Amino acid sequence: MAGADERPPPSLDRVGAFSDGVFAIAITLLILPLTDAQIRDGHVREDLLALQHEFFAMVLSFAVIGRFWLLHHEDLRAMTGAGRRMLVANLVFLFFVVLLPFPTALLGDGYSVTATIFYALAIAATSASSLLLWWTAERDGVLDERAAVRARSRYYGTVALIVAFLPSIPLTSVSPVGARLSWALII
Amino acid sequence: MAGADERPPPSLDRVGAFSDGVFAIAITLLILPLTDAQIRDGHVREDLLALQHEFFAMVLSFAVIGRFWLLHHEDLRAMTGAGRRMLVANLVFLFFVVLLPFPTALLGDGYSVTATIFYALAIAATSASSLLLWWTAERDGVLDERAAVRARSRYYGTVALIVAFLPSIPLTSVSPVGARLSWALII
Amino acid sequence: MAGADERPPPSLDRVGAFSDGVFAIAITLLILPLTDAQIRDGHVREDLLALQHEFFAMVLSFAVIGRFWLLHHEDLRAMTGAGRRMLVANLVFLFFVVLLPFPTALLGDGYSVTATIFYALAIAATSASSLLLWWTAERDGVLDERAAVRARSRYYGTVALIVAFLPSIPLTSVSPVGARLSWALII
Amino acid sequence: MAGADERPPPSLDRVGAFSDGVFAIAITLLILPLTDAQIRDGHVREDLLALQHEFFAMVLSFAVIGRFWLLHHEDLRAMTGAGRRMLVANLVFLFFVVLLPFPTALLGDGYSVTATIFYALAIAATSASSLLLWWTAERDGVLDERAAVRARSRYYGTVALIVAFLPSIPLTSVSPVGARLSWALII
Repeated sequence: MAGADERPPPSLDRVGAFSDGVFAIAITLLILPLTDAQIRDGHVREDLLALQHEFFAMVLSFAVIGRFWLLHHEDLRAMTGAGRRMLVANLVFLFFVVLLPFPTALLGDGYSVTATIFYALAIAATSASSLLLWWTAERDGVLDERAAVRARSRYYGTVALIVAFLPSIPLTSVSPVGARLSWALII
Repeated sequence: MAGADERPPPSLDRVGAFSDGVFAIAITLLILPLTDAQIRDGHVREDLLALQHEFFAMVLSFAVIGRFWLLHHEDLRAMTGAGRRMLVANLVFLFFVVLLPFPTALLGDGYSVTATIFYALAIAATSASSLLLWWTAERDGVLDERAAVRARSRYYGTVALIVAFLPSIPLTSVSPVGARLSWALII
Repeated sequence: MAGADERPPPSLDRVGAFSDGVFAIAITLLILPLTDAQIRDGHVREDLLALQHEFFAMVLSFAVIGRFWLLHHEDLRAMTGAGRRMLVANLVFLFFVVLLPFPTALLGDGYSVTATIFYALAIAATSASSLLLWWTAERDGVLDERAAVRARSRYYGTVALIVAFLPSIPLTSVSPVGARLSWALII
Repeated sequence: MAGADERPPPSLDRVGAFSDGVFAIAITLLILPLTDAQIRDGHVREDLLALQHEFFAMVLSFAVIGRFWLLHHEDLRAMTGAGRRMLVANLVFLFFVVLLPFPTALLGDGYSVTATIFYALAIAATSASSLLLWWTAERDGVLDERAAVRARSRYYGTVALIVAFLPSIPLTSVSPVGARLSWALII
């Protein structure tokens, strides 16, 4: 699928519409582990209580994906068009968004250390790839002028977020609950 | 993910498009408990009849989500732009919309009292959060002038709905079927 | 949720976008019975062949939903705005579109007569509700002038379709395969 | 559903919006085999490792669908309107896009030769149907003038891709891993 360089890139509106679709589906799929759960007829109350981890994981990931959606829209609005590198970076970013229901499902299975580490890494990777989107947009020359100032604070903000987030990974081996509470504070 | 205050909020169109996507997916996921059902080859007729609770729950929730979609669009059309508080309130509202397939699946499992209460609470919470959306839009100053009058009738209307709806919760412990019929009348 | 008469209806664009979302998801969910199928490691070839009914049902429903999508867009383009009755009729129409993956899953389970009748009825109901959409748009006064002529041919066309389709229902009790082939000719 | 010739075709924007929805859902459904996987509580690490084939298949198909999305948008932008034949060709193309999660799920089940051949054929069919889209657009007279030159390079490019791709099919009977690596190089 090579040799496409002379063709114009998709418009920014389409990139936004496609990304919106992916975000909307990823955020809605979070409910599936709950709807798939077996609720036995005479035990509805206990079975609902047993779903508390799934429910917590769903709420957390809803907040996380919602936050990324807000950031993504702010990023697109700072751009004047779509560039080749930025389009690939956008797909990479959306890949991590689509992936998030998977660590969420893991997290919902209980307080396993590995699941918590995996979840923390998935969010760090999504954050990092949103930086990549910004960086490629700068290289493609599609950032508007006023965005340059914001670009700096965005860089530092996201790097600060990842730096603040990574310590939660060793923390999980001590206390998975503590790590998750620390996320609630950051987000 | 802090310090974003100097960035402009997403446009109202994007908020509508993203919300439309979430509504469309949530309303379509309602069919999954039916498509996942086991229909045995020589027993199609009986197995279809056994799905009547699932089918009733699906129709009810389709009407409920469709109604919320209509209300949400009317709300967005009364706004002149997107504000920070209103965006968060919109995500909270969409959270309850995304949640609705879960109590629907519970309801489809039979006439359990707990499932009926859970369903009633989920709808009351969705209604309440749609009020929050309206209230934050007012505080963000993004309501258009003519909307002020409608705002009042909307407040009272939704509060009246919740007041009319909450009695169905104790009613369910007497008669789950009665409670559900009472919803059909209100909606 | 009453007393909303003084509020303006959603714009036609939004109705189209929401309907597009519902169509896109319903048509994509058709693949789920295939992806959920168990394919055993040393028996890929046989297990794929065993999925032929599921595959045929998926192709047929993809064509059917695609056809309804085309018709729906033509209908919306003949309208000058959205009306109250027409909005409810549109939700009723979308309800039957969302329902279609269910008879499709039934059809994929084999050549059962009940499944075939159910499928035929579902398509007839979807067609009939698309007539309802057109009829309510006329009553809401949102049909454009040139559409009046087309409206007639649309009425007769759909009624003719349903009339042509209903005989396939008794036909299924004689030969489910014959009934399905007759659909392929009509569509 | 005949006799529709006198009605105008849907606008190109709607075709793009509907296609975007289908792409967004197909690409997001790729995560389902991962979220559905059973992860046992004390064995999270091993169970995650056991999912490596599913994960590889998901990443590959995400890249493939992302690439087709980019191509599809470039194609639509070269068109000045929607034509009847082109609309049907677009639905055929979307059919193969919707189908892709199925061979992906097969591929995720292991290194079976049949699964690999099936996957290769599915991608070749999607590529071929994207050619059909371009060809019908030319026949419908909805290609813009500057697109004529690009049309040629697009024809040759896609045919070259399919020619380069088909050898991977006999290659899979020798080495499924080798065939998959060859795709990584082409894409």
